[in-house]
Amino acid sequence: MHSDSEVAPSYNHYFRGAVTEGTTRLPELRKDPITGRWVIIATDRAKRPADFAREQVIPKGGRFCPFCPGNESKTPPEVLAYRAGGSPNGSGWTLRVVPNKFPALRVEGDLDRQGEGLYDKMTGIGAHEVIIEVPDHMVTLADADQKRIEDLFWACRDRALDLKKDQRLRYVLFFKNHGEAAGATLEHTHSQMIALPVVPRRVQEEIDGAKKYFDYKERCVYCDIVRQEITSGSRLVLESDHFVVISPYAPRFPFETWVIPRVHQSHMETMQPRAMENLASVFKVTLQKLDQTLERPPYNFVLHNAPLQEATFPHYHWHIEIIPKLTRVAGFEWGSGFYINPTPPEESARFLREATLV
Amino acid sequence: MHSDSEVAPSYNHYFRGAVTEGTTRLPELRKDPITGRWVIIATDRAKRPADFAREQVIPKGGRFCPFCPGNESKTPPEVLAYRAGGSPNGSGWTLRVVPNKFPALRVEGDLDRQGEGLYDKMTGIGAHEVIIEVPDHMVTLADADQKRIEDLFWACRDRALDLKKDQRLRYVLFFKNHGEAAGATLEHTHSQMIALPVVPRRVQEEIDGAKKYFDYKERCVYCDIVRQEITSGSRLVLESDHFVVISPYAPRFPFETWVIPRVHQSHMETMQPRAMENLASVFKVTLQKLDQTLERPPYNFVLHNAPLQEATFPHYHWHIEIIPKLTRVAGFEWGSGFYINPTPPEESARFLREATLV
Repeated sequence: MHSDSEVAPSYNHYFRGAVTEGTTRLPELRKDPITGRWVIIATDRAKRPADFAREQVIPKGGRFCPFCPGNESKTPPEVLAYRAGGSPNGSGWTLRVVPNKFPALRVEGDLDRQGEGLYDKMTGIGAHEVIIEVPDHMVTLADADQKRIEDLFWACRDRALDLKKDQRLRYVLFFKNHGEAAGATLEHTHSQMIALPVVPRRVQEEIDGAKKYFDYKERCVYCDIVRQEITSGSRLVLESDHFVVISPYAPRFPFETWVIPRVHQSHMETMQPRAMENLASVFKVTLQKLDQTLERPPYNFVLHNAPLQEATFPHYHWHIEIIPKLTRVAGFEWGSGFYINPTPPEESARFLREATLV
Repeated sequence: MHSDSEVAPSYNHYFRGAVTEGTTRLPELRKDPITGRWVIIATDRAKRPADFAREQVIPKGGRFCPFCPGNESKTPPEVLAYRAGGSPNGSGWTLRVVPNKFPALRVEGDLDRQGEGLYDKMTGIGAHEVIIEVPDHMVTLADADQKRIEDLFWACRDRALDLKKDQRLRYVLFFKNHGEAAGATLEHTHSQMIALPVVPRRVQEEIDGAKKYFDYKERCVYCDIVRQEITSGSRLVLESDHFVVISPYAPRFPFETWVIPRVHQSHMETMQPRAMENLASVFKVTLQKLDQTLERPPYNFVLHNAPLQEATFPHYHWHIEIIPKLTRVAGFEWGSGFYINPTPPEESARFLREATLV
């Protein structure tokens, strides 16, 4: 795809003419202000939505599904559920959280740190859970009732507060793989949660980078980003009472989209009910805009939160990163940490801003 | 795939029984000794070669190819070529290096650094070139004559030495996308080179991590790895006079394979002819072992070299990382920098070690 040689891009004159004022035709290197990562924004290959070949994610149904109502016994017993009536592991639920049947980590055992010559390892203590977001197999998260989306974030909060009690666990990684191309193997819409005895690398990089910025400026870098994006407007997808949605300045991937709280907050667990409701509304609209603009693309999202056992950070600011899976592969990007993005964020933001929902 | 919930792994009792002595059945968290990245090695889901669904990469031919002999005029004029006779941009070559027709970066212009509010950018100065490794369309790099593979590395050296003269360029990223699933769009075997005014993030992380180790131990971490892997043998794929090939201790991906010089050397450009010949031999055997074990998988490799303008480093050690593309997607790994690897490196090394070449 874009990462390879001799790609015949669908050269698009409209697109070239439409580049935001002040942008030159030359490719640009842009630096992510948090982590310091440089990204090539290849304006010359600028791709618009129709230029990406991809699979549309539409539930088909028709096969046995362990996440459907009536099959509760096919999953491990639930650790959390929201239901109006009925009994645990029975029907009547609107959301269920169950341990992953084949977990990557286990809660049992001691957190044993060991050396092996120059190497370091520890036992894979942790938790791996699945959040079944809606009972209906045929509904995607974007199409679910807003209350279901709100409940997803409540579940995330409830699980984080519970897992926090286990002092061995330092981080809860909350994410979704939507569509086969984004890594989902079961069609019924669900998210996942992995609780870890370590902080994931990219989150740690963000925390370190944000700390450096704070030490220098005495301001949170995310708060500064929110302010600048609202003022400039060119990368703004939407704003609400409590959140802004933007195409970040130095995105690794086309149509990468971030949802950031307007007011400083390091941990999502401390969100108030009104903000939670607002998040559900903003998140639904964002997913629907992505669905409309990119024709129901596969995507991943990851919630970037402050570490579980830490007190409030003045320098870190929780947020959600959504990455539609539009290009075939990261290829050499994996090996180098260096990214070429064929869609300037000013363009993706404009497309998403202008997407009108039915 | 492995990163998702409820995957029904082909539970393999042979495999479970065959786990290296001393390894428990519990999943393990392992730390990369260079960058400090933690990885889950999910022994419980241990996957062997046949468990990965993938596309076999076999050249088909039959369509017009700008990289084939006779079509030299269809590429930009060559910047380097190896040929016995004939004239530039004519036939008779065994290797050609040409600028990418749709480059991600350009050599023309000034390296202009600018701010944009809190953001930083610079013009996309650099170079983007394609190395056509062999004239024959139907041959893969693994099946090419050893001399062709040696020439590939000579070309890499020659281009690095030439690009070094441009003081604006700080790094040459040399990589290959093999097979459509790994990002190749043209079938005719080729590698790529991107010269950059910045050092790619992952390389910088390695340099910083290796520097920390050196400051503490007064030894190169890669030299220590080479020594420990030769002694232990459990992750060793092969060793030769000048190189070792290993499955690294904390690999992000199944069958990730590193080729490391035995003797300390920070820049590949300083390699001597005998080492170059040995590299070609070792690299060919490694690719063939991967081809045999994984049935001609798509793969990427990236050469990790010290920065262009820097003098010899006592702490950094150049090497090549090969990543077969076996799992569908990195999914949440992109967003978090956190990896789950379903194949312990002791297992992948054993498979590769035992692969006997015809």
